[in-house]
Amino acid sequence: MSYSESLSRLLASVDASEGCRLVVTSKGRTYTGTMMPHHDFSAPDILVLKLKSGYNVGIRMYQDSAVQVVERPSGKKIGLAANEPKKGLKKLVLIGTGGTIASYVDYRTGAVQPALSTSELVNAMPELREIANIEARVLFSIFSENMNVEHWQKLAEAVSEAINDGADGIIVPHGTDTMGYTAAALSFMLGDVPKPVVLVGAQRSSDRPSSDATGNMMASARFCVDGNRAGVFVIMHDTQSDDSFAVHLGTRVRKMHTSRRDAFHSINAPAAAHIDADGKIEFSGHGREVSDGTAIAKTGMEGRCILLQSYPGMDPDIFTDIMVRSRGVVIAGSGLGHVNENMIPAIKKASDAGTIVVMTSQCLGGATNLNVYNTGRDMLSAGAVSVGDMLPETAYVKLMWALANSGSREEAVRLMKTSLAGETGDRRLA
Amino acid sequence: MSYSESLSRLLASVDASEGCRLVVTSKGRTYTGTMMPHHDFSAPDILVLKLKSGYNVGIRMYQDSAVQVVERPSGKKIGLAANEPKKGLKKLVLIGTGGTIASYVDYRTGAVQPALSTSELVNAMPELREIANIEARVLFSIFSENMNVEHWQKLAEAVSEAINDGADGIIVPHGTDTMGYTAAALSFMLGDVPKPVVLVGAQRSSDRPSSDATGNMMASARFCVDGNRAGVFVIMHDTQSDDSFAVHLGTRVRKMHTSRRDAFHSINAPAAAHIDADGKIEFSGHGREVSDGTAIAKTGMEGRCILLQSYPGMDPDIFTDIMVRSRGVVIAGSGLGHVNENMIPAIKKASDAGTIVVMTSQCLGGATNLNVYNTGRDMLSAGAVSVGDMLPETAYVKLMWALANSGSREEAVRLMKTSLAGETGDRRLA
Repeated sequence: MSYSESLSRLLASVDASEGCRLVVTSKGRTYTGTMMPHHDFSAPDILVLKLKSGYNVGIRMYQDSAVQVVERPSGKKIGLAANEPKKGLKKLVLIGTGGTIASYVDYRTGAVQPALSTSELVNAMPELREIANIEARVLFSIFSENMNVEHWQKLAEAVSEAINDGADGIIVPHGTDTMGYTAAALSFMLGDVPKPVVLVGAQRSSDRPSSDATGNMMASARFCVDGNRAGVFVIMHDTQSDDSFAVHLGTRVRKMHTSRRDAFHSINAPAAAHIDADGKIEFSGHGREVSDGTAIAKTGMEGRCILLQSYPGMDPDIFTDIMVRSRGVVIAGSGLGHVNENMIPAIKKASDAGTIVVMTSQCLGGATNLNVYNTGRDMLSAGAVSVGDMLPETAYVKLMWALANSGSREEAVRLMKTSLAGETGDRRLA
Repeated sequence: MSYSESLSRLLASVDASEGCRLVVTSKGRTYTGTMMPHHDFSAPDILVLKLKSGYNVGIRMYQDSAVQVVERPSGKKIGLAANEPKKGLKKLVLIGTGGTIASYVDYRTGAVQPALSTSELVNAMPELREIANIEARVLFSIFSENMNVEHWQKLAEAVSEAINDGADGIIVPHGTDTMGYTAAALSFMLGDVPKPVVLVGAQRSSDRPSSDATGNMMASARFCVDGNRAGVFVIMHDTQSDDSFAVHLGTRVRKMHTSRRDAFHSINAPAAAHIDADGKIEFSGHGREVSDGTAIAKTGMEGRCILLQSYPGMDPDIFTDIMVRSRGVVIAGSGLGHVNENMIPAIKKASDAGTIVVMTSQCLGGATNLNVYNTGRDMLSAGAVSVGDMLPETAYVKLMWALANSGSREEAVRLMKTSLAGETGDRRLA
């Protein structure tokens, strides 16, 4: 869809084109920024400016809205620059999956639509091409609540292929809803991946003034280029402002707020690093350095796993059967990893049937310990496996992976109790 | 069990008795504090001192341990003072339920045992009797992971009886595992309760040097006596140190760490008040003042309710049936309250069968909003009920209560979308 007739006329009257610096007044508000390309999906009366903050704003233009050109681009085309690889720059591959970061607001309905292609996303952030040669691919275009195990598997394959094809780093724009789960899945599937694999999202879509998309993407690219860290990470705003970004380990990260830009937190571990708005990286502790190794994707996953939370009134009659029928059960227990005593026979029945029953804590913070109270010791006797300070969601993803990548129940339990990708720092795994 | 022969002899040799101020040296460590009564359950070689911090420490005494009396009580008996009501002091009723706060460490096994009676607990904290007339009752003596709906009902009855019997405030020592659930249950069952009802716990048992039991109990008593606030609250350490205590609203509080003393946080609301070590109370916003009304316990609860967390790979084949068979389902969805699209038919099937399916967010922070993305709108069409910034656990407890205390499904849904006890501050309940 192109601009409306009236908006086209207005822009033509001042000879405004992409890359021009404009002052736009609409409905009493004034915006200053660089004129961006008009996306096919945008409403015809929306003009998109990139603000000085790096954010794009979609401005609805009315009959009485005004546009003034204050600076013209000196030959340099913004937005749709040809994608010629520049010498000396590293190669980053963007593998798009969808999510708010690749979304726009449908101004007719107010709804957010998943429609930006990865190259549109890159074109909306021309600064990206200053720091790396970017190759963009679209793998999926879905909201992350619809990500499933098969998506994780395809994504791990695509990431490892891109790395083995010469990428110095991978950026995966991803919906925030299940980004933590995907990060955990990639962490186990990709094991000792030799390059940085960064999942990045946005809490506000790219065409909104308050969007965190550009900041998070730029920080991700900086980290891939300058960080010298291999592994799977999530990079998002560290605070509500735009001057600090946190690099979270893929197995330790959790979305802790439905809407704030600093929704993602590292739980039971410090963030792996922080990046400021100038791209300066500060690391917390050591990490694996990048290497020239080969990326191997071990994508086997046992689908017959479930994640439950224990609660007062939990009825064993309802849950025993589904636990027995599963190959793996992760329970987010109370406190140190407890269930109500009336659920202990269910744990025993499931364990006796070969199910691995893993205890984590719904507190999220801190570690499970089934040796302190009688309840815990009874649970251990019933067969429960305690995994310390591992997040429930990470334990669930890991259990699927451990069951598919081990030869026996015992080996899978052993894997659950060993830190494979930084998912637990707890030494008292009892 | 009394002291061992050697320890009895040692204490007799220096004429040490309860209330004496002692300096005790054992295994190279020196402790100064007031000698406390020897509990029946303590090992015979354990001497309990109350330290200056208010904490009790159980010291294992050996052949070469030494005791020195540095001050004798001047006629004032500490610990087992007669329980004569003092004029001018308010009457607080302690209703014991068990938990770590009423526990001791079994030094033979290292395990924590639930055995302190409520009056033993009070006797271990003689300062309590300085600020109120304390009546202590034991209702249960269980760890809170074993609390069930019937316990909540009995507790609500006991609380309302005590208030109608003249109590100015109720303190409920409670295990921390499910204290948030019980607080929510009492909040709905007791409605406009005219006095303060404070649940209080400890992360370390009362006989350990690092116990938070005394501090939390004292803050609870102070709040009941001086706070002039009616309602159901949880009072626990606000920080890791012993100088600040947080008063959480019963519907907004969640245990967020398995072991830290400041494990309890108010989510999506500020703490109702803060109390410092001197008992000074600072309120955040307004609350209901105490009154002379009657306490009424509406304890009806619909047991056929379940709490689930959605996750990638969640299999509708496993969960549809149990959702249809329930009268109420609370799902902690991803992000703004989403499920995977393949779970939407399960929501529809359950809703069509009359089940109320309530969406909360596993993020915990922030509010659900099913109007932003297509997934959410499809869920609303399927019958999902979005409850804003209500905690999943609170929503589960409330749903049980709403179903039992309403005449129709519509009324129960209406109750879920109305703030009854501060459980949601969200005005966009769609």
